[in-house]
Amino acid sequence: MAHVLGQNQYGKAENRIVRVHRGSTRHDIKDLNVSVALSGAFEDVHLAGSNANCLPTDTIKNTVYAFAKRYGIESAEAYGILLARHFVDDTERGVVHRARIRIEEYTWERIRTPDDNARPVGSEEVGHSFVRSGQEVRTSEVVYDGESVQVVSGLKDLVVLNSTDSEFRGYLKDGYTTLREADDRILATQVTARWKYGYTGRGDEAQPPWNRCYTQVRRHLLEAFAGTYSYSLQQTLYAMGTRVLDHRAEVDEVRLELPNRHHFLVDLEPFGLENDNEVYYAADRMYGLIEGTVHREGVVPVIPVA
Amino acid sequence: MAHVLGQNQYGKAENRIVRVHRGSTRHDIKDLNVSVALSGAFEDVHLAGSNANCLPTDTIKNTVYAFAKRYGIESAEAYGILLARHFVDDTERGVVHRARIRIEEYTWERIRTPDDNARPVGSEEVGHSFVRSGQEVRTSEVVYDGESVQVVSGLKDLVVLNSTDSEFRGYLKDGYTTLREADDRILATQVTARWKYGYTGRGDEAQPPWNRCYTQVRRHLLEAFAGTYSYSLQQTLYAMGTRVLDHRAEVDEVRLELPNRHHFLVDLEPFGLENDNEVYYAADRMYGLIEGTVHREGVVPVIPVA
Amino acid sequence: MAHVLGQNQYGKAENRIVRVHRGSTRHDIKDLNVSVALSGAFEDVHLAGSNANCLPTDTIKNTVYAFAKRYGIESAEAYGILLARHFVDDTERGVVHRARIRIEEYTWERIRTPDDNARPVGSEEVGHSFVRSGQEVRTSEVVYDGESVQVVSGLKDLVVLNSTDSEFRGYLKDGYTTLREADDRILATQVTARWKYGYTGRGDEAQPPWNRCYTQVRRHLLEAFAGTYSYSLQQTLYAMGTRVLDHRAEVDEVRLELPNRHHFLVDLEPFGLENDNEVYYAADRMYGLIEGTVHREGVVPVIPVA
Amino acid sequence: MAHVLGQNQYGKAENRIVRVHRGSTRHDIKDLNVSVALSGAFEDVHLAGSNANCLPTDTIKNTVYAFAKRYGIESAEAYGILLARHFVDDTERGVVHRARIRIEEYTWERIRTPDDNARPVGSEEVGHSFVRSGQEVRTSEVVYDGESVQVVSGLKDLVVLNSTDSEFRGYLKDGYTTLREADDRILATQVTARWKYGYTGRGDEAQPPWNRCYTQVRRHLLEAFAGTYSYSLQQTLYAMGTRVLDHRAEVDEVRLELPNRHHFLVDLEPFGLENDNEVYYAADRMYGLIEGTVHREGVVPVIPVA
Repeated sequence: MAHVLGQNQYGKAENRIVRVHRGSTRHDIKDLNVSVALSGAFEDVHLAGSNANCLPTDTIKNTVYAFAKRYGIESAEAYGILLARHFVDDTERGVVHRARIRIEEYTWERIRTPDDNARPVGSEEVGHSFVRSGQEVRTSEVVYDGESVQVVSGLKDLVVLNSTDSEFRGYLKDGYTTLREADDRILATQVTARWKYGYTGRGDEAQPPWNRCYTQVRRHLLEAFAGTYSYSLQQTLYAMGTRVLDHRAEVDEVRLELPNRHHFLVDLEPFGLENDNEVYYAADRMYGLIEGTVHREGVVPVIPVA
Repeated sequence: MAHVLGQNQYGKAENRIVRVHRGSTRHDIKDLNVSVALSGAFEDVHLAGSNANCLPTDTIKNTVYAFAKRYGIESAEAYGILLARHFVDDTERGVVHRARIRIEEYTWERIRTPDDNARPVGSEEVGHSFVRSGQEVRTSEVVYDGESVQVVSGLKDLVVLNSTDSEFRGYLKDGYTTLREADDRILATQVTARWKYGYTGRGDEAQPPWNRCYTQVRRHLLEAFAGTYSYSLQQTLYAMGTRVLDHRAEVDEVRLELPNRHHFLVDLEPFGLENDNEVYYAADRMYGLIEGTVHREGVVPVIPVA
Repeated sequence: MAHVLGQNQYGKAENRIVRVHRGSTRHDIKDLNVSVALSGAFEDVHLAGSNANCLPTDTIKNTVYAFAKRYGIESAEAYGILLARHFVDDTERGVVHRARIRIEEYTWERIRTPDDNARPVGSEEVGHSFVRSGQEVRTSEVVYDGESVQVVSGLKDLVVLNSTDSEFRGYLKDGYTTLREADDRILATQVTARWKYGYTGRGDEAQPPWNRCYTQVRRHLLEAFAGTYSYSLQQTLYAMGTRVLDHRAEVDEVRLELPNRHHFLVDLEPFGLENDNEVYYAADRMYGLIEGTVHREGVVPVIPVA
Repeated sequence: MAHVLGQNQYGKAENRIVRVHRGSTRHDIKDLNVSVALSGAFEDVHLAGSNANCLPTDTIKNTVYAFAKRYGIESAEAYGILLARHFVDDTERGVVHRARIRIEEYTWERIRTPDDNARPVGSEEVGHSFVRSGQEVRTSEVVYDGESVQVVSGLKDLVVLNSTDSEFRGYLKDGYTTLREADDRILATQVTARWKYGYTGRGDEAQPPWNRCYTQVRRHLLEAFAGTYSYSLQQTLYAMGTRVLDHRAEVDEVRLELPNRHHFLVDLEPFGLENDNEVYYAADRMYGLIEGTVHREGVVPVIPVA
């Protein structure tokens, strides 16, 4: 019985790039991790040992760096679109049918004096000195198939915690249930979010303001988490997703993965101490994992399940 | 415009379990990391804050441990099938429509004297003393939707290296190509493999011998890697996939992810030394990433792209 | 020839604790990872299999949690001092001669609206909603030997970068030197710092304001890094250490470990592009590692070399 | 008050090197991670911004690779000694007073057929095809100060487990003790071991057979762990250390760090199941951490406490 080569792709992964934009009085930096995957007419590479259609991953890497110089990096999404279009449209003989660019972005703040956030550390220094900020990583994925562009942006490792206003009661019970109901618990999670833009890159459609969208989606996720009295992490997830759709018209689908970072109340009774929701053990594993998609009516969701 | 709850699932992830089977003269152990995800009638959990259909993840955890005692763990796959069927078939009111069980398995060897592999360390000791072996992790995923079972087994972190019999030449060149052709290079990769079994769990279909299948697929992957003169990692990937299909009738689809762990020849000329493929720098990043599926003709591949 | 039991210690490591201080209108949280190591009269535990002098690590864990309730956690250092004194002074029969408490602290910020940092997310929510902030981890180590206390505080994973004002020239050359001199390079490092306080805990000596000291030392490290034109990372290290000693009288020794996170200028000439210090490849390994101690004259340094 | 530069050192860390020894019918490989730290006359580098005495870390890296070609790598220890002597003895103007070489070694096995360990995968293939083996990493540290050499070898990440023959009873109890005594428990740990050789490198003293010593020390550690009925992990630690000293005359000090990887018996009574030491939950954190040194009488121990 014959064997068939199915879906396949290749590229250079984890190209670490720091791009300095050197202004006259101060610098700006972009710190990215860029992964490229190409699909196309690669049957002979696999089956016949012919590399005639194989653009080396080393060339892919060179392109990533050269484009950063040639076009600058205004946002990961805009830069990713340029790269994806290049690999499909410019590679000779039409061998590349589809390009996927994934980018992680690490954020930096300017170094300031902690006592006075408004005053920088001297006028000369602030221009070129940075400290890594935040826990979270900004993510983006651009796919281009020769016809249209699909952009899914996101974030990961955004860790949040509510120290009250969370309960978990009235759940289904079976012969393996021993959990006691909780009417006041810590709710904590490490948010992974991805959201798809309606942007298709066809015609003269304008690109959304990617950086501002990111900031605003992050804000709405945080505000929904903070502002929701939680009956379950599922309910909080849905509140977070709808909040984004309510406020950002550019987005038509949100996917969230929320591990429930359990905080267990420690039993201090044996030591004559009452523990009135004050002392918790933060567990690593096992953890509940809650995942879900919220999308606009009529939109076909595309973000895959992890 | 209304919002819609799309695909969603939840469960307990990373239940770490060690199961000891205590024989009269010696013990056996299974060391697993079990993650459960359930899909079903969970709209009200998300939208209405009602947990009436929510089986707590704590209950899921209890079930994982209780089943290990009740049924033992002959193989991760057989154990996963029992769990998946239970969550769908036994949960009341038919709230669970689909269960996915993912398991990582860590392998152990009995402690022996290194000088004499055939002779154990005294007759009493060998029975209960173990050392973690190998780099690789065995994986399995069982999905049950109330009708049929799908089993995708695999491995990850299997690191292999050929110190010769690999070249890379005749590739596509464009304006960003600077790579020089290589006629003798190190080929090294960290194999992630997943393979789908034809088994569907319908009727009285017998389960494949999961443990033997695993050992044999691993063997064929290694032999194909070692025995193939490589023109590209893509070509090696295809050889590995077909070798498995050729030898294991139970398997009808193989998906491989092969990061190209680059080993760069160090330039020692400035120090008056010739480097005849002897001294290499092993790079972490960036790396080529080669992915592909090989399947039997007529089979619809189901293993998702990462 | 007889064998001797040398230095030994044991304890419970990585007790993860979250302590909520519940104010009437808002909560505060401390998020710690506490490791305890005890030394003492443990010969019989090792040599005779007698546990009469062995306080179980489970008891040590219980104590860590109980003390968090009983005394609250004003700072990691003050809490560590209470724990260290307890294990030495309160354990019966004087079996514990020395206690070492190591604490990692993870920092959280209140969730606010990003558009207006001054305005919280509604008056109810802000009180109990937090997001993990910063990359760095605050560390502290308290040692008590029954007579005096030694406190070494620190931080790790503070990642900083100067995009200019760094050179490296005029270095020693030998037959293995190929490096070209750099008159404008990126200087980036991931700071690990430890500093010893003069505080001894004897008599009625007041404890330093630990939290304010931490904030200020961190500030001075950042300002010295940002404000120093660098001839080498060694010279920057010395500037950072002296800046702390100049400004914080409580500190008499500073130890710094500064991996040089190399950023290599990418050669874009083959593509007809000039790279005027704009596009860099951020390397993982190998890296320069620069370590050093700066201390006050007359002080005997105690922070060990890693 | 003046500030003083205390202990300082610098070098290139984590030089990843793969050395292929190409025999006529088969290859051998060494896979190392080499870190170099130099101490010496570096005051002006720190204080005056003068690099005249600073051998660049890039040069250090070049030397590591060049020596691998020039001298081959018979063992990590012998190679480390050559490097350490070179940096101190050969660097001009006597600026380097002390060199410390740390090496991690990753082990590989030849690829063989799993069904028949004695028969390789065809005569051609076996010669150059390898698979990473084992969990543990071999470590070594060589220090040379211009007069004598000190070699501390070791291993880490050797994970072992006894499924019985371990108890923990009769321990000290205080007001925070809630632990119940255990008469049959799992004992599991992840061994980090370091051992110092008596070898000093003075005169014409012959080097010990480093590779065989490593294999034998590892064997004795495993055998002692497996063969000891354990009253505490401390007692097992001492048994492991003395076993090495009893069998390897070259070694005069052993330091062990043994995290107690707790396996908790799961309570299955609520589900009508008895758990007769069969089903365990393997915890990540918190964990007991047991550390200790065993040395020959009259020897001054030098391996530092972590």
